[in-house]
Amino acid sequence: LRKGFPEVIFGAGKTPEQVVGIATKILESEERVLVTRIQEEHARALRKKFKKAIHHSVARCVTLEKSPHTKRPGTIAVVCAGTSDLPVAEEAAVTAEIMGNTVDRIPDVGVAGLHRLFGRLELIQSANVIIVVAGMEGALPSVVAGMVSKPVIAVPTSVGYGASFGGLAALLGMLNSCGSGVTVVNIDNGFGAGYAASQINALVEQNMKSVV
Amino acid sequence: LRKGFPEVIFGAGKTPEQVVGIATKILESEERVLVTRIQEEHARALRKKFKKAIHHSVARCVTLEKSPHTKRPGTIAVVCAGTSDLPVAEEAAVTAEIMGNTVDRIPDVGVAGLHRLFGRLELIQSANVIIVVAGMEGALPSVVAGMVSKPVIAVPTSVGYGASFGGLAALLGMLNSCGSGVTVVNIDNGFGAGYAASQINALVEQNMKSVV
Amino acid sequence: LRKGFPEVIFGAGKTPEQVVGIATKILESEERVLVTRIQEEHARALRKKFKKAIHHSVARCVTLEKSPHTKRPGTIAVVCAGTSDLPVAEEAAVTAEIMGNTVDRIPDVGVAGLHRLFGRLELIQSANVIIVVAGMEGALPSVVAGMVSKPVIAVPTSVGYGASFGGLAALLGMLNSCGSGVTVVNIDNGFGAGYAASQINALVEQNMKSVV
Amino acid sequence: LRKGFPEVIFGAGKTPEQVVGIATKILESEERVLVTRIQEEHARALRKKFKKAIHHSVARCVTLEKSPHTKRPGTIAVVCAGTSDLPVAEEAAVTAEIMGNTVDRIPDVGVAGLHRLFGRLELIQSANVIIVVAGMEGALPSVVAGMVSKPVIAVPTSVGYGASFGGLAALLGMLNSCGSGVTVVNIDNGFGAGYAASQINALVEQNMKSVV
Amino acid sequence: LRKGFPEVIFGAGKTPEQVVGIATKILESEERVLVTRIQEEHARALRKKFKKAIHHSVARCVTLEKSPHTKRPGTIAVVCAGTSDLPVAEEAAVTAEIMGNTVDRIPDVGVAGLHRLFGRLELIQSANVIIVVAGMEGALPSVVAGMVSKPVIAVPTSVGYGASFGGLAALLGMLNSCGSGVTVVNIDNGFGAGYAASQINALVEQNMKSVV
Amino acid sequence: LRKGFPEVIFGAGKTPEQVVGIATKILESEERVLVTRIQEEHARALRKKFKKAIHHSVARCVTLEKSPHTKRPGTIAVVCAGTSDLPVAEEAAVTAEIMGNTVDRIPDVGVAGLHRLFGRLELIQSANVIIVVAGMEGALPSVVAGMVSKPVIAVPTSVGYGASFGGLAALLGMLNSCGSGVTVVNIDNGFGAGYAASQINALVEQNMKSVV
Amino acid sequence: LRKGFPEVIFGAGKTPEQVVGIATKILESEERVLVTRIQEEHARALRKKFKKAIHHSVARCVTLEKSPHTKRPGTIAVVCAGTSDLPVAEEAAVTAEIMGNTVDRIPDVGVAGLHRLFGRLELIQSANVIIVVAGMEGALPSVVAGMVSKPVIAVPTSVGYGASFGGLAALLGMLNSCGSGVTVVNIDNGFGAGYAASQINALVEQNMKSVV
Amino acid sequence: LRKGFPEVIFGAGKTPEQVVGIATKILESEERVLVTRIQEEHARALRKKFKKAIHHSVARCVTLEKSPHTKRPGTIAVVCAGTSDLPVAEEAAVTAEIMGNTVDRIPDVGVAGLHRLFGRLELIQSANVIIVVAGMEGALPSVVAGMVSKPVIAVPTSVGYGASFGGLAALLGMLNSCGSGVTVVNIDNGFGAGYAASQINALVEQNMKSVV
Ligand SMILES: Nc1ncnc2c1ncn2[C@@H]1O[C@H](COP(=O)(O)O)[C@@H](O)[C@H]1O
Ligand SMILES: Nc1ncnc2c1ncn2[C@@H]1O[C@H](COP(=O)(O)O)[C@@H](O)[C@H]1O
Ligand SMILES: Nc1ncnc2c1ncn2[C@@H]1O[C@H](COP(=O)(O)O)[C@@H](O)[C@H]1O
Ligand SMILES: Nc1ncnc2c1ncn2[C@@H]1O[C@H](COP(=O)(O)O)[C@@H](O)[C@H]1O
Ligand SMILES: [Mg+2]
Ligand SMILES: [Mg+2]
Ligand SMILES: [Mg+2]
Ligand SMILES: [Mg+2]
Ligand SMILES: [Mg+2]
Ligand SMILES: [Mg+2]
Ligand SMILES: [Mg+2]
Ligand SMILES: [Mg+2]
Repeated sequence: LRKGFPEVIFGAGKTPEQVVGIATKILESEERVLVTRIQEEHARALRKKFKKAIHHSVARCVTLEKSPHTKRPGTIAVVCAGTSDLPVAEEAAVTAEIMGNTVDRIPDVGVAGLHRLFGRLELIQSANVIIVVAGMEGALPSVVAGMVSKPVIAVPTSVGYGASFGGLAALLGMLNSCGSGVTVVNIDNGFGAGYAASQINALVEQNMKSVV
Repeated sequence: LRKGFPEVIFGAGKTPEQVVGIATKILESEERVLVTRIQEEHARALRKKFKKAIHHSVARCVTLEKSPHTKRPGTIAVVCAGTSDLPVAEEAAVTAEIMGNTVDRIPDVGVAGLHRLFGRLELIQSANVIIVVAGMEGALPSVVAGMVSKPVIAVPTSVGYGASFGGLAALLGMLNSCGSGVTVVNIDNGFGAGYAASQINALVEQNMKSVV
Repeated sequence: LRKGFPEVIFGAGKTPEQVVGIATKILESEERVLVTRIQEEHARALRKKFKKAIHHSVARCVTLEKSPHTKRPGTIAVVCAGTSDLPVAEEAAVTAEIMGNTVDRIPDVGVAGLHRLFGRLELIQSANVIIVVAGMEGALPSVVAGMVSKPVIAVPTSVGYGASFGGLAALLGMLNSCGSGVTVVNIDNGFGAGYAASQINALVEQNMKSVV
Repeated sequence: LRKGFPEVIFGAGKTPEQVVGIATKILESEERVLVTRIQEEHARALRKKFKKAIHHSVARCVTLEKSPHTKRPGTIAVVCAGTSDLPVAEEAAVTAEIMGNTVDRIPDVGVAGLHRLFGRLELIQSANVIIVVAGMEGALPSVVAGMVSKPVIAVPTSVGYGASFGGLAALLGMLNSCGSGVTVVNIDNGFGAGYAASQINALVEQNMKSVV
Repeated sequence: LRKGFPEVIFGAGKTPEQVVGIATKILESEERVLVTRIQEEHARALRKKFKKAIHHSVARCVTLEKSPHTKRPGTIAVVCAGTSDLPVAEEAAVTAEIMGNTVDRIPDVGVAGLHRLFGRLELIQSANVIIVVAGMEGALPSVVAGMVSKPVIAVPTSVGYGASFGGLAALLGMLNSCGSGVTVVNIDNGFGAGYAASQINALVEQNMKSVV
Repeated sequence: LRKGFPEVIFGAGKTPEQVVGIATKILESEERVLVTRIQEEHARALRKKFKKAIHHSVARCVTLEKSPHTKRPGTIAVVCAGTSDLPVAEEAAVTAEIMGNTVDRIPDVGVAGLHRLFGRLELIQSANVIIVVAGMEGALPSVVAGMVSKPVIAVPTSVGYGASFGGLAALLGMLNSCGSGVTVVNIDNGFGAGYAASQINALVEQNMKSVV
Repeated sequence: LRKGFPEVIFGAGKTPEQVVGIATKILESEERVLVTRIQEEHARALRKKFKKAIHHSVARCVTLEKSPHTKRPGTIAVVCAGTSDLPVAEEAAVTAEIMGNTVDRIPDVGVAGLHRLFGRLELIQSANVIIVVAGMEGALPSVVAGMVSKPVIAVPTSVGYGASFGGLAALLGMLNSCGSGVTVVNIDNGFGAGYAASQINALVEQNMKSVV
Repeated sequence: LRKGFPEVIFGAGKTPEQVVGIATKILESEERVLVTRIQEEHARALRKKFKKAIHHSVARCVTLEKSPHTKRPGTIAVVCAGTSDLPVAEEAAVTAEIMGNTVDRIPDVGVAGLHRLFGRLELIQSANVIIVVAGMEGALPSVVAGMVSKPVIAVPTSVGYGASFGGLAALLGMLNSCGSGVTVVNIDNGFGAGYAASQINALVEQNMKSVV
């Protein structure tokens, strides 16, 4: 049913052995696999077993591809405010990439310094889908959505303290901004955002092919 | 910035006179306007002033179009479980339609009777985007997303009582299903879902044109 | 202790008779009184009794001044996104005015259309204190605070529906933006914001006098 | 009062010594004892002291039976979506078994892949009671309840992250699905589900005997 | 799938005409129908159309049976503390009755006066299933479950004020008492409790028949 | 102002050195000091420095008395359900004792086994004040208050898991039982309950003296 | 069990006829009855039936006494900040009075103007028990408790708006102040506070008698 | 845009190497830098690299200044109740100091012992801005605001347990006290309070200069 998309292993709560075992099993029949939410030791175990395993350490992911994927046309932009949100933003980017998309990373644009955002506007506007990752008050997606007419997927992060309540403040902020076409995924769910963005970009490609 | 999309008036908390006034002003420069969250009296006032006003009573919307929109290719499916969710589902459908999309309504498919959902599967799978509207436990988007590979936009509704907490249960359920590519809008936000779905469908069209 | 500041009557939950009674009593010894959160009937009763009573209907306030206040130097800017937030913004403005301040109203600048905000930037930057009123996701104070170096007081409003949870989303958003010098008052508390802004502006005046 | 049911020790927060002590005391007068929520070290201490102690490591339980229980007629099905929910599902299964029931485990059926569920439908429908264990959005009990006419006991688990809020999302989802005869126990309370299911199965047996 | 069980119409939010229409449609093929959460006017409209309609006014229900149901063996006890919980308790009782069960009502037994509960103990213990309805702190199911070995279904009600938070206090209390075999339905969900209790009692009957 | 009551040190978050330092300072002018929420190492440090220090290990307290207190007439009963609630119950008991009261401990009486509670009823009824400590659903105070006419102080504990939400369920349960004269303190606040109970018992003594 | 205390009817949600009926029944065997949470029409119906009925309109209560109660020695102080909290404060006072206590009302002392509180300090300190009623941030009980050594019962009220969340802010504030011997009842539960205060005062009286 | 204010590094979640790296980079162009939320090891690394680094250990901050700042006129008072709130109070004080302000610390004044607060009143009243830091019930800002006419910035802390819910009780208390001109920052956000207070004090200075 999820044809064309790689199999995914959610690494959190699994031992390195379990993860290697599942990956081995999947690769018997599949071309590629994505492992998310892993720690150093899982990465080491996977790389020991699979020569081609790549550890994306900020993203806390490992990807395994027997052969490189052909990239589909169009880009996905992954926008975030700062270093704390990077793990989630990178999880989104790595997910989108292994699903066959070209990703543009715009990592240092917060609402408190809009000039930096304006400096990257052309790149953002040229994307087919924009993923916006933000913690704290989660205001960035509203601002970005006001400047583009493409689908915006907002990812709240658990970055913050006190009244951020583990990402709740950012989540609520993003849900209340949906009027302008923003849709939202779970707190810290970079994977889900990358997956949904890829589905949209794949849809575009599919329809383009149908025309030709 | 929102070129091609109609202007929208959020009717809740505005008097009929205010709504007529804003609509008149918009129509000086625009081809069409959508008024959401209105009551009978707003509809009457708008239809008295504008001959072409159409009252979508279940959707609690009025649309005003100087001339009919050309529909873009591809369909948007609007799926919901039952009569209580219809106002939100219709708000999504009317929004998508006035934004130039063809909408397929699949209104009576709940998780408690999956055979009805299976009976409409082909229609759902043929859409470019699927909007799934559900109250109570909000399980429908998870089930639908498992059966299609297209983008699914989930709309929780405030339908329910007790521990539904005004739509919170459905919202949380949908956010926790994002792994399979579901994205979520605010509780009862049919407008936002229709708007986001239209953005995706417009993106597809735009890219198809670029090919030709 | 609150010398120089007018007495204030919180009208909600009081009858017109009670409000008139309390106002009469206060005016025996005071120069001016502010009545907040009133309805049409309270305004009528107050204006019947007091010739000089002024009804600020959007603000849901009545002010009563025996003689006009001398305005202190410096301005307070009251910024908000749209018509729904106006009652709270006006409550803040009326409060600041009766406390002897000059107020600049900037009522139509939302994060979804930043060009409108940029068009008013000079006026905002020239103020001593900026009150920013916003409902929904409450992102406006973060954006404004990033563009000025003056104290910003954020007022979340209960405007919204669904996951706005009566203003909670806006409140949390604003609290999580405090890093850049934003401070926050209670949901819909235009009065509190106007009062705090006036305290700051009065402090400035007081120190200027001490220099001269 | 709980005649026929074994004594149960809730191991969490107790030392191995305390658990062994309580178990020893109970076994002076009882035939069997169930210890739940224990760690490796408790299991080791119990097995050192009691030859017949069995450690159910996934379930985090130890059972102690002087002599084997006769199984009553009828089965209890324990259904769950994946590996993360297994500890709770196994706690339910082990509880039901030591209370004298035959248990059918159906461990790998999630709402995202309904075909797997359909493949096990006959086994599920043949049970007297069905326990459904699910984390994340907790949609599985609604789907299962729609396919059987037997009592369904739903167990939300704390599996998930972000807006799962420690199992709250699954709990609310399940409570809002009760229309179709689903009843719910506390988050992660596999024991409670197994106990309640056993009470129902025991009731059936008791009435069958009364007929014969 | 729900063979033997009557069709049910959830009346809340439907007009009398809608309810009469749906009921008419159902009765074309079914023997009986239950309408819940209705007001006086719905009852009047139904009784005008259907001679045999019975209005259970405390339960806010109407039942429609072409011919009387044969009652299955065994009883269901419906226990509650006082007059405020009666509508929910009666909804449970009426639901259980139209599904073919004999119901014993024990309406005036609260935890603050345990002697009244003890006076009805024999009746409660003789039931096959016990439904316990309670608002406020929801302590009654814990106490009842301690005195019987039969399945107990707890129904929290929204009766109370302040920190009862619309039934949340009772709901949480009941979920935390599940250790002793209590299962819980949604706040005010008398229907769900009656339905689940009937499923259990029907299971008992079914197995008794299989023996004979 | 707190004459007759000992000084109290809240040990949580303080180092052993800090605690010893503060205690030394207090004992320069006071007869006795109570240290709560400490760990083994604090106790060791205090006992090394002060010969008369007594470590109440279950209560996580140390008491220091230069000379024994004369006990006032009347008793305070401390009632709880089981071993998990003991630390909080003991904190209440130790607090009440060092404040000059005689305490009766009734540690093993839960609502699931009311016969044990009835067996201790006379002792409970003979007390001047009853402290009831309970976690999970917090039903015990309601039951106890129904059987005595003395002031009942309820202490919710954080014992439990899942929907106990760190003691919230017990807290809400107890607050909703206040009709019968129950008052409530913070979650796990054994100290506050002991202190309040002592204030009541001291009031009684004081008035008795005034009569004589 | 509640000897000496009057019977109480909770009027909310009951019709005037129901209330008169219950009161009539109680007065067959009792000397006095208290009816709380009633509206004008209930008061009228009660006074029509019972000559001696007294309507306490601010307290929303009616009291019915065949003959006047002898007052026990000692006073109960009822302290609150302002007019909005009066209904709850009066409910507490009326409850304490009909239970045989002398009540001192101190109605206009808030934390924002401590001089007014200091002016009444002697009266407050002379009471046996102090009930402190407060909405908004609920800070008053902490301040009062710091100035007296008598038992303080805190009553949070639902007075406020926005982040007062129906009294939750006041409730949490009061629970977190318990260190100094404050105990708390449910939001708006003036009755419960009056009842508990009376139990304490009755305890004092009872012990004084035992001495003489 | 933030001219005159030092650059700030939020140390939480960064390694010592990262912090040293960022600080080095900032100091290439800036006169001073503030590092907040660091641990011992970050302080050591910073002091090893920078001779002039000062470790404020209670505040969990390091400051780095190439040359001392000239202090602007006027003081900022930082008021708190006790030792547990000190880290947050010190973070506020250190922030205000490095931003060029003179700070008066008033560290030991709680609402339970108002005499200590009164003893420091003159010092508090002489400040231009008052920062009040409080955990638990957060009542202190209300009391302080009632005694001064200067801007009060309230900082709730996460100090407490049980129903303090990580600072939520204090936060809500402070938001509900805003009527008297109190504004609020995020839980534990000493930095934000110091920053906002400095903005106000800088505003005063700026206007004084404009006069001269
Ligand atoms: N980082 C992630 N966040 C959310 N869901 C994920 C993530 N990684 C994987 N998943 C989902 O988890 C499934 C695999 O779970 P598992 O079988 O437990 O490894 C995948 O099919 C995805 O739908
Ligand atoms: N039903 C709706 N739900 C959410 N947002 C809406 C809805 N209808 C309109 N909007 C948004 O509200 C804006 C208009 O608001 P207003 O200027 O108050 O009429 C539109 O541009 C939309 O972004
Ligand atoms: N205002 C009140 N708030 C809380 N509980 C009350 C109140 N008035 C009466 N009660 C309680 O409600 C019981 C009577 O309830 P009812 O039988 O429904 O009239 C009394 O015994 C009291 O325990
Ligand atoms: N203790 C603190 N609490 C809240 N915000 C802070 C704190 N310290 C620094 N910040 C903010 O965090 C920003 C720096 O974040 P970063 O770039 O991650 O080091 C600063 O500009 C401040 O606005
Ligand atoms: Mg946009
Ligand atoms: Mg899919
Ligand atoms: Mg700024
Ligand atoms: Mg079923
Ligand atoms: Mg039982
Ligand atoms: Mg009692
Ligand atoms: Mg005191
Ligand atoms: Mg002040």
